[in-house]
Amino acid sequence: MEGFTYLWLIWEFENGTPGGTAADIANDVQTENKRGTTEKWFPTVRPPRLGGTKRRGVFATRSPFRPNPIGLTCVKLERIELTENGPIIHVLGADLRDGTPIFDIKPYIPFADCHPDAQGGFIDETPWQELTVHCPAKLLQAIPEEKREGLLEVLGQDPRRAGSKHEPERTYHLAYAGFDIAFTVDNTNLYVQRIEPAIS
Amino acid sequence: MEGFTYLWLIWEFENGTPGGTAADIANDVQTENKRGTTEKWFPTVRPPRLGGTKRRGVFATRSPFRPNPIGLTCVKLERIELTENGPIIHVLGADLRDGTPIFDIKPYIPFADCHPDAQGGFIDETPWQELTVHCPAKLLQAIPEEKREGLLEVLGQDPRRAGSKHEPERTYHLAYAGFDIAFTVDNTNLYVQRIEPAIS
Repeated sequence: MEGFTYLWLIWEFENGTPGGTAADIANDVQTENKRGTTEKWFPTVRPPRLGGTKRRGVFATRSPFRPNPIGLTCVKLERIELTENGPIIHVLGADLRDGTPIFDIKPYIPFADCHPDAQGGFIDETPWQELTVHCPAKLLQAIPEEKREGLLEVLGQDPRRAGSKHEPERTYHLAYAGFDIAFTVDNTNLYVQRIEPAIS
Repeated sequence: MEGFTYLWLIWEFENGTPGGTAADIANDVQTENKRGTTEKWFPTVRPPRLGGTKRRGVFATRSPFRPNPIGLTCVKLERIELTENGPIIHVLGADLRDGTPIFDIKPYIPFADCHPDAQGGFIDETPWQELTVHCPAKLLQAIPEEKREGLLEVLGQDPRRAGSKHEPERTYHLAYAGFDIAFTVDNTNLYVQRIEPAIS
């Protein structure tokens, strides 16, 4: 497997609502909510990239709210660690929550999977609006040093759910590395308000 | 969806053994064998590309014999036909049998799915050995004209199963467009012996 640069993960959308806050996740754990997203699917969805205002057919999107709750993610193979309990595959770039069930792992095969001629539909046509992140240094210190850059990147990519983007007074929450990150957004500026350990 | 050049199909390996002959398929239909390939999976497999002689871990291959019988295929979106019974998506390059259950359809998104830097492991290192196809013209005439080129291409790609490649005296069978194609192989030459309607 080490000869492959990338792997496919095929996995299950479950554990409640994607994009949930730390409180949502804690609540899912308490209630053992494993319904996933299938029961909420609808033939059209509002992709976050389109600002949550325009609808597209669900099969023209990678939305988690789909008839079969199957996710597909290309990850970079970092290394394979051999342990007494079997090999551990370390990957980079996964957009899965901890504990997500993995149905299958496949190698990324360039001649079948890499298509530089591909057009990306509405995704190509709609650049993702990144945010400028403002975070007081003393708040950021609550996060372990090696996790700080990742947090700022995630915030800069605008982690708000599509349907909630038009509420300027709202305080948003992000679950990150065991912390609850509270923030507000003014146009393209994101302001971190609080960073607290997630309620467990 | 029309804005995307390619789509992902996520589907189920079922209907008996992949690479089966017309007789195998007819037998599967009669016995309603829907076991698929999962019950035959093993932690290592012998990829056809390696001549059927070397083993690789199943998750380093796209073998159908895997713990969860899930297939992943990138297809080219040809057109979408709107009918009274709903839209029909026409695609090119699918390696699925007719009637295969489709779990999901997703758009191919270049920034997430296209990785020109990807190395393809043993697949890059092992060029596929194509065959020179010898087919008497009068045999080929049994096939509808528009299907002939496709048949010769499939044969040239060597459709033999990996484990059977080392039997020089063997007559192989391929199910193609409702016909049973019988052929022999001598080194890199393939000789079509008979073309007959498949037993239904």
